[in-house]
Amino acid sequence: MTMKFGVIGTGALGVDHMRRIQQTLNGGEVVAVTDINPEAAKQAVANWGLDAQVFPDDRTLLAEGNVDAIVITSWGPAHKASVLAGIEAGKYVFCEKPLATTAEDCLSIVEAEMKHGKRLVQVGFMRRYDSGYIKLKEAIENKWIGEPLMIRAAHRNPEVGDSYLTNMAITDTLIHEIDVLHWLVNDDYKAVQVVYPKKTKYASGHLQDPQIITLKTASGIIITAEVFVNCQYGYDIQCEVIGEEGIVALPEVQSVTFRKDAKLGVNLLMDWKQRFIEAYDVELQDFIDSIQKTGEPGGPTSWDGYIAAVTADACVKAQASGEWEPVTLKEKPEFYRTNR
Amino acid sequence: MTMKFGVIGTGALGVDHMRRIQQTLNGGEVVAVTDINPEAAKQAVANWGLDAQVFPDDRTLLAEGNVDAIVITSWGPAHKASVLAGIEAGKYVFCEKPLATTAEDCLSIVEAEMKHGKRLVQVGFMRRYDSGYIKLKEAIENKWIGEPLMIRAAHRNPEVGDSYLTNMAITDTLIHEIDVLHWLVNDDYKAVQVVYPKKTKYASGHLQDPQIITLKTASGIIITAEVFVNCQYGYDIQCEVIGEEGIVALPEVQSVTFRKDAKLGVNLLMDWKQRFIEAYDVELQDFIDSIQKTGEPGGPTSWDGYIAAVTADACVKAQASGEWEPVTLKEKPEFYRTNR
Amino acid sequence: MTMKFGVIGTGALGVDHMRRIQQTLNGGEVVAVTDINPEAAKQAVANWGLDAQVFPDDRTLLAEGNVDAIVITSWGPAHKASVLAGIEAGKYVFCEKPLATTAEDCLSIVEAEMKHGKRLVQVGFMRRYDSGYIKLKEAIENKWIGEPLMIRAAHRNPEVGDSYLTNMAITDTLIHEIDVLHWLVNDDYKAVQVVYPKKTKYASGHLQDPQIITLKTASGIIITAEVFVNCQYGYDIQCEVIGEEGIVALPEVQSVTFRKDAKLGVNLLMDWKQRFIEAYDVELQDFIDSIQKTGEPGGPTSWDGYIAAVTADACVKAQASGEWEPVTLKEKPEFYRTNR
Amino acid sequence: MTMKFGVIGTGALGVDHMRRIQQTLNGGEVVAVTDINPEAAKQAVANWGLDAQVFPDDRTLLAEGNVDAIVITSWGPAHKASVLAGIEAGKYVFCEKPLATTAEDCLSIVEAEMKHGKRLVQVGFMRRYDSGYIKLKEAIENKWIGEPLMIRAAHRNPEVGDSYLTNMAITDTLIHEIDVLHWLVNDDYKAVQVVYPKKTKYASGHLQDPQIITLKTASGIIITAEVFVNCQYGYDIQCEVIGEEGIVALPEVQSVTFRKDAKLGVNLLMDWKQRFIEAYDVELQDFIDSIQKTGEPGGPTSWDGYIAAVTADACVKAQASGEWEPVTLKEKPEFYRTNR
Repeated sequence: MTMKFGVIGTGALGVDHMRRIQQTLNGGEVVAVTDINPEAAKQAVANWGLDAQVFPDDRTLLAEGNVDAIVITSWGPAHKASVLAGIEAGKYVFCEKPLATTAEDCLSIVEAEMKHGKRLVQVGFMRRYDSGYIKLKEAIENKWIGEPLMIRAAHRNPEVGDSYLTNMAITDTLIHEIDVLHWLVNDDYKAVQVVYPKKTKYASGHLQDPQIITLKTASGIIITAEVFVNCQYGYDIQCEVIGEEGIVALPEVQSVTFRKDAKLGVNLLMDWKQRFIEAYDVELQDFIDSIQKTGEPGGPTSWDGYIAAVTADACVKAQASGEWEPVTLKEKPEFYRTNR
Repeated sequence: MTMKFGVIGTGALGVDHMRRIQQTLNGGEVVAVTDINPEAAKQAVANWGLDAQVFPDDRTLLAEGNVDAIVITSWGPAHKASVLAGIEAGKYVFCEKPLATTAEDCLSIVEAEMKHGKRLVQVGFMRRYDSGYIKLKEAIENKWIGEPLMIRAAHRNPEVGDSYLTNMAITDTLIHEIDVLHWLVNDDYKAVQVVYPKKTKYASGHLQDPQIITLKTASGIIITAEVFVNCQYGYDIQCEVIGEEGIVALPEVQSVTFRKDAKLGVNLLMDWKQRFIEAYDVELQDFIDSIQKTGEPGGPTSWDGYIAAVTADACVKAQASGEWEPVTLKEKPEFYRTNR
Repeated sequence: MTMKFGVIGTGALGVDHMRRIQQTLNGGEVVAVTDINPEAAKQAVANWGLDAQVFPDDRTLLAEGNVDAIVITSWGPAHKASVLAGIEAGKYVFCEKPLATTAEDCLSIVEAEMKHGKRLVQVGFMRRYDSGYIKLKEAIENKWIGEPLMIRAAHRNPEVGDSYLTNMAITDTLIHEIDVLHWLVNDDYKAVQVVYPKKTKYASGHLQDPQIITLKTASGIIITAEVFVNCQYGYDIQCEVIGEEGIVALPEVQSVTFRKDAKLGVNLLMDWKQRFIEAYDVELQDFIDSIQKTGEPGGPTSWDGYIAAVTADACVKAQASGEWEPVTLKEKPEFYRTNR
Repeated sequence: MTMKFGVIGTGALGVDHMRRIQQTLNGGEVVAVTDINPEAAKQAVANWGLDAQVFPDDRTLLAEGNVDAIVITSWGPAHKASVLAGIEAGKYVFCEKPLATTAEDCLSIVEAEMKHGKRLVQVGFMRRYDSGYIKLKEAIENKWIGEPLMIRAAHRNPEVGDSYLTNMAITDTLIHEIDVLHWLVNDDYKAVQVVYPKKTKYASGHLQDPQIITLKTASGIIITAEVFVNCQYGYDIQCEVIGEEGIVALPEVQSVTFRKDAKLGVNLLMDWKQRFIEAYDVELQDFIDSIQKTGEPGGPTSWDGYIAAVTADACVKAQASGEWEPVTLKEKPEFYRTNR
């Protein structure tokens, strides 16, 4: 039974998901499309030879598109309205991050979903589907290193454009660590601090780069996360979990080992798009499979979207204050407690 | 347009391919099944809830099954007849190794296929679809290490059962290196030698283990390949290509890096089935995609099956003689010359 | 011209230095010895077959021992008096850490040395002589990674005894990082913070373990240093310097690479005494050689001892306050400015 | 009690040993020197400010030099005469490789030494003193990998000059593997084979490079040793021992780990002189220490020099024949059987 998808937003990421559903995954097809620019939507349908209808907007697509699920790849500020419309229509929703641009808006989605009575929404935090993070989580859950006590993470990009601002280190970059790390250790954040090291000469005048963000969890784990978006040398995601009896670290990206030019090593990526390319496939396939098996999506929930929003807010506040800032979450509803 | 598959042989590997086609891959479905044991075939269809017909034998399946392609996963001695029947019926054929049990039989398949006028057959040498070997081939073809001069390979299993015989080190084990290494450097074998090191105490009385096989290619590359099937420590496939300007080696299997128990390292596999699990998916997906795009399968050809058979024969002869034995291949027909 | 040494304190470390001077190094001999326990001193002389005189105390040794230099390996509270007596006598002084137990006492040594007019004192911070740290410093000074912006350090012991207290994480353990890291980047500390992660179950009731100490330098480098003295898995010293254009990390301890028991890796040390065993030799040889070449010792100075004391004080204060605590150093006298 | 050395041959290596004895090691001094070019000998003495007498030749040095031991660093063809003269004079002899240029000459040294009745001679195979090989030998002798079955070795130089000939791959390059590998597994060679892979374009017209030498030991271990002296990428010595229960490999040369320019790795050496620089120190210090403790040198013996000569002869013969060539050693005299 093939799941019929409507895609809302046919920019680069939207088109990528269309290709994914149509060509790579099993059990889905794109039957409806909309974009704020209707020509772009038509073009996308034509380019991929889809048998899909183009709608003027999300509400019409939901009303008339005969879809089982929507994929939201519009720009962030438009997410909330589309997600709520999807829930209202009783459709499954795969929403790229952010779920909404404020914690309050995330909460309104959470409430709408709970009112609907079934989980419909999955947020596009793809790292949980990366084979490396999965292996890391398995090692932790198998008690291979005892209780986790500390995490050292780094998120490094070779460079960013001038439009990248200091707070985007949190909202665009660290946001992935925020989601994946609390999932990794099955814990909640309690407080955050941001420290600014010496600034690299490669950062724009207005940008503080690198930054070190420290997060404390409810159980006391201390996470030291570095964001460094002009590191020059590569796109590099590191995560090391230090437990009572040992340490496990995220595997390096697969590469041939070379001996060449007086060096022994492996190649690193320069392009972030390659890093989680398989995770995107696995993520959306799991969305389809989990719904078909259990009636609910199995990935990051609206509540996870809310956690990310609240934690990011606290981090941005901590950037300005230089102080420890609390992360104040509402109590997790029973509705979101079952783990996959 | 979905490709309709008939599966010939519903043992472990056959059932695995049925699951793969039905659940994991895109663009295929299993519509017909046969096995020497009809109950096994029925059981397989029932277990997987397939909408597939069970036939008494391969010829009937081909005649009445309305299939586009067959997958041959019967035991080796039955392959030749099924492949020839498939070609005769003008169906695509995906045949697990060996293509046939003798070089002569492989050649008769080659001739049948050429007579048919189009490539129909792909042999299940899945390593060419392993992401590590693909990266290795890319590095070589990008001239990253200059001309390849030598290869050091190892094929190690933790242990084998008593029924594993000395010649199986060639026909069951080295056979994968035989296929993948000539593909890797785009060359042909010219001569082989086998040397027996001191025997491990973990080998059965009748089994020579380990063995070192040296292969010379037409262009002069020397390949030193170790087969060691009771190595105890893991399932470990190694391949290092030494070129004029550097060396590249197959990546290790992905694993978390650990620091534990006075050791820093990564985990190795013990179970061979995990090693190429993704390559099996990619292999069969490529079979489907390539046929749909070009009308011919894009993987290892009948000719590659013939090369493997001739080379394995020479290696088995060299086991007995202790001498260099020539690998005498017929001239490669134009029909098989186009590379994908 | 052989340098004549007097050894003050014949405990384990003192005896080790006696052996070192007598057997391993070039250009030194032990001619005088004293210990608070005279029998221990006699025993040490006898055990090593030394032609050395035993004196009742440090002052007598200095007055009558005909020594060129003293090695101070008594317990910490006795260091100050011996160092000052050595300076007063115009002898070279090799003093194990700490130089003195308070910043004020260190300062009084600094003043005495400056008054004497020539550098006489070297503090036993042996890490500066470790081949790994030296390679790291070379890489930094060659501008191989651009300006250093951040350092990630870890100091891990498998376990400590019950007598190890929370502040000893600073004064006994981190003290080595305090010395070596400012030397590594040629910078001074400005402020420190201590954060306590979840406590390991392997720590004594009174001990906070692990701890994370953050140090800011004058130029803005942020150092995140973990102290974890019950980490179970090994004695592990890590140091990674993150610069504007790349990263360099301390080499792992030399070990064979193994493939065994489903693991690929290297062995780590369990015993800290093995880690810097060569550095101790190089350190004391450099003390001898540098004095013979330049008339002054070339290693860590009294001023470095003072820096360590002030910084450790700030860290201990930060343990209690949970706040950033300033590191307030006097201006570095011209006398200590010349680098080796 | 300082050992008095006479140095025979004051070329680069001789001068290096003079510096080593005088400055780095403990318990030796250079008191006598000779060279075929007397001016070079005088210059060397003057340059190092030695209190050493220059003699016209080795015999005069031995007769009048009042030395305890000689170091022979003249050119190879002169070694035999100096070694025999040293034995005749009852002096200890440290002789750089080769002990003599033919197996027969080595045997005459062996006989002279046995006649003298005490081991006097050590051959300068310094790899046995490399900390990496020592760790490898420890792992093997601790039965950490069970019985050794195979060894994979490689000896690679970035490039060689035009005067390097095909047989020098054996006599100058492989000679080090010949010595260190039989020591590593405590075994003797029985037969050798040489195979020529495709030649690198970086080799001179007259030079076959690379070469693969296979050596069989008495117990059946197969050693595959690659010599590749124009490998371009670095000076790289590899050795991997494959045992019944696991594998151990020689550690890589210590280097910082870097992340830079899209690569993660370590630096390799380009200059062979750096590779075993510490082993030279340890080797000659052990010569001194062992003689002072036991009355005999503890390193590679005359018999080891003979083994190297016989094995190298067989390899050179195998280069020409392309066949397995036997390595025929006389029975090892009791005199040389005690292991250190």
